[in-house]
Amino acid sequence: MKDIIQKLDNLAEETAGKLEWLAEFGKDPEGGVSRLLYTNEWVEGQHALKEWMENEGLEARFDDIGNLYGTLTGKNTNETVLTGSHVDTVKNGGRFDGAYGIVAGIIALKYLKKHFGQPLRNIEVVSMAEEEGSRFPYAFWGSKNIVGLAKREDVKDITDFDGIPFVEAMSKAGFKFKADDTAKREDLKAFVEIHVEQGSVLETEQIPVAVVYSIVGQRRFTVEITGEANHAGTTPMGYRKDTVYAASQMIFELISMAREEGDPLVATVGKIEAEPNIVNVVPGKAIFTIDVRHTNKEILVNFTEKMTERMKEISKEHGVETVIDMWMDADPVPMDATIVQLIENQFKQNGLNYKLMHSGAGHDSQIFAPVVPTAMLFVPSLKGISHNPAEFTEPADLAEGVKALIGALYELGYKE
Amino acid sequence: MKDIIQKLDNLAEETAGKLEWLAEFGKDPEGGVSRLLYTNEWVEGQHALKEWMENEGLEARFDDIGNLYGTLTGKNTNETVLTGSHVDTVKNGGRFDGAYGIVAGIIALKYLKKHFGQPLRNIEVVSMAEEEGSRFPYAFWGSKNIVGLAKREDVKDITDFDGIPFVEAMSKAGFKFKADDTAKREDLKAFVEIHVEQGSVLETEQIPVAVVYSIVGQRRFTVEITGEANHAGTTPMGYRKDTVYAASQMIFELISMAREEGDPLVATVGKIEAEPNIVNVVPGKAIFTIDVRHTNKEILVNFTEKMTERMKEISKEHGVETVIDMWMDADPVPMDATIVQLIENQFKQNGLNYKLMHSGAGHDSQIFAPVVPTAMLFVPSLKGISHNPAEFTEPADLAEGVKALIGALYELGYKE
Repeated sequence: MKDIIQKLDNLAEETAGKLEWLAEFGKDPEGGVSRLLYTNEWVEGQHALKEWMENEGLEARFDDIGNLYGTLTGKNTNETVLTGSHVDTVKNGGRFDGAYGIVAGIIALKYLKKHFGQPLRNIEVVSMAEEEGSRFPYAFWGSKNIVGLAKREDVKDITDFDGIPFVEAMSKAGFKFKADDTAKREDLKAFVEIHVEQGSVLETEQIPVAVVYSIVGQRRFTVEITGEANHAGTTPMGYRKDTVYAASQMIFELISMAREEGDPLVATVGKIEAEPNIVNVVPGKAIFTIDVRHTNKEILVNFTEKMTERMKEISKEHGVETVIDMWMDADPVPMDATIVQLIENQFKQNGLNYKLMHSGAGHDSQIFAPVVPTAMLFVPSLKGISHNPAEFTEPADLAEGVKALIGALYELGYKE
Repeated sequence: MKDIIQKLDNLAEETAGKLEWLAEFGKDPEGGVSRLLYTNEWVEGQHALKEWMENEGLEARFDDIGNLYGTLTGKNTNETVLTGSHVDTVKNGGRFDGAYGIVAGIIALKYLKKHFGQPLRNIEVVSMAEEEGSRFPYAFWGSKNIVGLAKREDVKDITDFDGIPFVEAMSKAGFKFKADDTAKREDLKAFVEIHVEQGSVLETEQIPVAVVYSIVGQRRFTVEITGEANHAGTTPMGYRKDTVYAASQMIFELISMAREEGDPLVATVGKIEAEPNIVNVVPGKAIFTIDVRHTNKEILVNFTEKMTERMKEISKEHGVETVIDMWMDADPVPMDATIVQLIENQFKQNGLNYKLMHSGAGHDSQIFAPVVPTAMLFVPSLKGISHNPAEFTEPADLAEGVKALIGALYELGYKE
């Protein structure tokens, strides 16, 4: 196994080349890729992938809503090991996010077939219809259909930015709702997704591949502070209800608290606005967002509660009114410990310089994990850039990822 | 003198009524007043004021550029004591800012003439063409022409928001540049401007009238912090160059420093913006403004230098790049100590509950003060509201201001 994998010499070139090829479907004139759900570019891309799967000797098929599967049929066809990722991109996105998981999966299955023949269980690669939520206000459409969580009620009345209804776009692309939208695949024994990190940890630490033990939980807040707009010249400091002053203390303290808490906790104030936002007026209103993430639910909850308490104290000290609205509360999603261990063991056997890490971003794996034993692999992202035409991973790292995936699928698909 | 002033019973009603009348010129359909330089509303307002001045027995005339004067001619016509303010408003402004100084001046001259006859020196009220800079990008056009500081070079190529050239608007209103734009009036012995406070100090302290000893100096800055935009989930805290975090510490510390420094120092961060300003992206850029004011130049300079040094330290601690641009640096303008003393003495003699205070906002008086002995009087502003249709001063306070002005003009115009 180890010997064969190490002999796959052209893997870097082959993987990078296939990603270039796939990026032609939805290529933006100014660089980047826009391949949004059920668009012409998306339809052409999926059909091209189907043809490629067939050329590699996989049995290819679409499901009702447009997830594309390529199967290496096993001796026991009741059990399937699934790999893959999403084929859609954000608007003007990159060549790697999602696409890498599909391309790596097809290449992995090709070499598994070539060197090891028929597996014990089905091994399948999926090119999922949608994950990003970039065309319609709905994310994870692909994976949610596979595990029976997608409800037609949620999408039947939504439209895209041009007013085109979801149902019309789906129909035009050649797909329709499943007969029973709560039906889920019962044959799935494991899901392994490989993805670019979308962060700079692996690049900075010069590690080619990681296995993910958890996807972070997220809590997002909007904080709205109301004070009093006043003349910046004629209002003495003691007379003010200065919302930007109150906000500055809250933000400074909450981010300092997050730094003290330590990894993997992250807290971000990404958006801030003042009203009336004029140089010579004491701002009567300040609004900012907070995004807090951690892999451990208890720590996430405790931190955000402590943070909220402190913000209320600061608000009182400043004599302003503060409304803290938590509008997202997603629990962390741990990966399957057995599969993670299996992958780690393999890395150790191969003497590979790997990292056990968490994912700070959301992925299809978080939809699978509560239902199917799931794990993820990461390869480095240049400077952590993602959702951007500059998204890049070195071909050598792409190849290391494919090798790791081959190893994982071999363990899961060929062994008892 | 004191007896006569106290007998002016209808002063509150008369002053409030005349302000209502003047507000008709440029009245906005939704409330408020828009009387911008050289507009039809402005022309009609100035001509109506001229007629009122003449009806009160004053000698009324325009100068070349449209300042309107009403003179109570003295025995010695070489010396003039001037009062008044600006007739223009901001867009959708209030009824009191500027207008009160003109109305109070005309009423004061009416009663001086009636009760004390011809003064020793000319006493003159001026309705100045412009102070706000709300139509064209140029402020203090009226007062700068009187003291010889308005240069035709500065305005000859500027246009308003509709592209109408300054010169064309002036000509259409019936005015033109002075033959010699550096010529100044040599007869002015004193200037006393009465104005609404535009702050809430007098209202809060329940004091009907103030004499101003200084107009603050101002320094304004734009601070631009450059860090790195990163994914809010996948970038550990230690990897970040978070500009909003750096900005929050700068703002919190600088406003705290200003509060420690104490009155009359004020510091305001009125405007703040982050880029890309998205909830789940660590902001790569943050931009905010600082407005600092004090009546003492040395304290203003020392404070802003200390503040700037501290911001540079914070920038270094955060590993971000910070550019601090000071784009306004106006010195404080002290009022004439002799006139201030004269007014205070009179308040004391009359047993009036007055306040000696500074002005935190700019006024025509700051243009006069370096050239002509100048002082200001303030009356309360409801909740400090100004540049807004809700601008309001109680009629009783308006009357107290007129009485104070009559007293000051009597001292300056009738006594040796």
